[in-house]
Amino acid sequence: MKNIAILGSTGSIGTQALEVARNNKDKFNIVALAANTNIYKLLEQIKEFKPKVIAVYDENKAKELKEILPNNISTEICWGMEGLKLIASLEEADILITALIGMIGLIPTLEAIKERKTIALANKETLVTAGNLVMKKAKEKGVNIIPVDSEHSAIFQCLNGENNKSIEKLILTASGGPFRNRKKEELLTVTKNEALKHPNWSMGRKISIDSATLMNKGLEVIEAKWLFDVDVEDIEVLVHPQSIIHSMVQFKDSSVVAQLGNPDMKLPIQYALSYPDRIHSDFERLDLAKISSLTFEKPDMDTFPCLELAYESLKNGGTYPTVLNAANEVLVSEFLNDNIKFYDIPLYIEKALEKHSSVKNPTLEEILYIDNWSRQFIKETIK
Amino acid sequence: MKNIAILGSTGSIGTQALEVARNNKDKFNIVALAANTNIYKLLEQIKEFKPKVIAVYDENKAKELKEILPNNISTEICWGMEGLKLIASLEEADILITALIGMIGLIPTLEAIKERKTIALANKETLVTAGNLVMKKAKEKGVNIIPVDSEHSAIFQCLNGENNKSIEKLILTASGGPFRNRKKEELLTVTKNEALKHPNWSMGRKISIDSATLMNKGLEVIEAKWLFDVDVEDIEVLVHPQSIIHSMVQFKDSSVVAQLGNPDMKLPIQYALSYPDRIHSDFERLDLAKISSLTFEKPDMDTFPCLELAYESLKNGGTYPTVLNAANEVLVSEFLNDNIKFYDIPLYIEKALEKHSSVKNPTLEEILYIDNWSRQFIKETIK
Repeated sequence: MKNIAILGSTGSIGTQALEVARNNKDKFNIVALAANTNIYKLLEQIKEFKPKVIAVYDENKAKELKEILPNNISTEICWGMEGLKLIASLEEADILITALIGMIGLIPTLEAIKERKTIALANKETLVTAGNLVMKKAKEKGVNIIPVDSEHSAIFQCLNGENNKSIEKLILTASGGPFRNRKKEELLTVTKNEALKHPNWSMGRKISIDSATLMNKGLEVIEAKWLFDVDVEDIEVLVHPQSIIHSMVQFKDSSVVAQLGNPDMKLPIQYALSYPDRIHSDFERLDLAKISSLTFEKPDMDTFPCLELAYESLKNGGTYPTVLNAANEVLVSEFLNDNIKFYDIPLYIEKALEKHSSVKNPTLEEILYIDNWSRQFIKETIK
Repeated sequence: MKNIAILGSTGSIGTQALEVARNNKDKFNIVALAANTNIYKLLEQIKEFKPKVIAVYDENKAKELKEILPNNISTEICWGMEGLKLIASLEEADILITALIGMIGLIPTLEAIKERKTIALANKETLVTAGNLVMKKAKEKGVNIIPVDSEHSAIFQCLNGENNKSIEKLILTASGGPFRNRKKEELLTVTKNEALKHPNWSMGRKISIDSATLMNKGLEVIEAKWLFDVDVEDIEVLVHPQSIIHSMVQFKDSSVVAQLGNPDMKLPIQYALSYPDRIHSDFERLDLAKISSLTFEKPDMDTFPCLELAYESLKNGGTYPTVLNAANEVLVSEFLNDNIKFYDIPLYIEKALEKHSSVKNPTLEEILYIDNWSRQFIKETIK
């Protein structure tokens, strides 16, 4: 029996992780949950899974939850960053699923590493913004970081039993998002509703916009660099609209190993929890004869400059990815609030990157400072 | 440095194995070679690789080779089945590549297992005809059998680091051969030259005809059963005309892992020799964006009854696969000599299977007897 804590239990990954736990009650036990504000969903989850502790990031919402909690439930409730840290480092937990949105996941993740929790990482911004720091700490503590992103889970599976020194290239597949094959002119005036319609995956709002700009793939390139310790030159993005091949590894003998499946996040979530074992699932089986054709094309970096920006920030190193990520978080939020247009996202990210003076091997404090600088810069610049 | 012996060095696999050795002289050393009759090719190979011992199956050819061998070459020459056995069990060899054509490879393979040689198995008929026996002996002696067939090498690679108990299904891909999408009526009068034109792979004549009838895939299903210890119901054949995905494993959590590459037998040969390491190669890299599309369809068992016959013989078990394989060897040879028509191959195999009384857990002697019975039965029946 593995004891599991989830940061971000009311989001898309969090609820699917609970579904996996629900279907494998003999293997997974939920000991702690944390969410941002959605206390009504959290209340349902508390009733079903009876965790020991709950954290609500929003203090007022946490207190509201305390009031509506039935008397017969003894779950402890805490709040704020301290609450998230408590969940991340809970003694009873073996695995922490980090499924918060954005770089808010960074500090709790570092806390979990300190306490030697296995980390099922669904919060890619943690590695994007502070990959060097996080991986260094994880190595020091001998902590396993198991990716939950379908692409990185695919690569992780392909590397099973292989020597990382045999890697020649990682090939991250990309659906191409809702605007694949569209021209720049056509995308000047797209709305958030068009951008939110992902062709293959059902996901949260932030990641859906990131998929429309291809920034999501850019963030994944950065995440892959840190997770698998490869050079940026050895990470390739390949557009594969059907999202069946989730990613591939090319080895130095020319052999390519790929992981495939229907687009369903529950598989990488379950794999991260069951690893190194595989457990039976009822997920729909892949039927390639029915799918009939898988196609591939090069990404269009002109139409989707965010991908190029992510590559550049990684090549330039230091804290450029921190700036890219923070700027992107603010800009996506502004786009979702109808305050900016689609191409304002790469435009302002580029401005922030240009303005930034990078720091090599940054400390946590420097990362937090620069993250904040980037957010402020964007907010002031788009006014 | 690994010392390598090759049974079948003048054939397609043998010459490609020598090419791999030539390109990795610091890793592989050729200590012994064996061929059937092609002494002129063998002489070139002796001059280049200076093996310690050579076997020529044909005694007269062996003696002819002795006469033309330059005086300054000290290679020992032997012949017949005793010669093959000597090569297979040579003390100096670490790995034996078994690339003979047909069930003639069986006895030398058993000899190599007795002497605990690692076996790079390119002679699928060995497992088809005597899989139970060979795998039992290999297990007893702790011998690694590493497949060289591209499909089985793919599965072997996909299973790296995985628990065999996690396998739900093996998916063997098949190009469909030169007659894919042809109807039965169109194939009644096809010639050997049409059948020899494989769309993707450059291979020997016997395996090319087997690919045209889909018997090759049937033999591979049987081979896979023994290599990976799975039930026949859990082995699926999927037609994939581009031959880029070499095969796949579906695990019980629904995840599918596949191995891909350009069709080039040198990769699985090199992998079998370098395993568990991967070594750098100059083989052409896979370019999926250029290939653009991979397609899949179910195999047409009506038009290609050999595949169904192979499945049935495996389901019925015992010595049915021995009969199938021996009958097929004779019939392919007769087809290559223009003595029978394309559909005579499955027709007479079926007759042999119907006539046969199967033996459970056969001994080597029983297998040899039944193999011989099947050959005689076919020869008499097609007169």
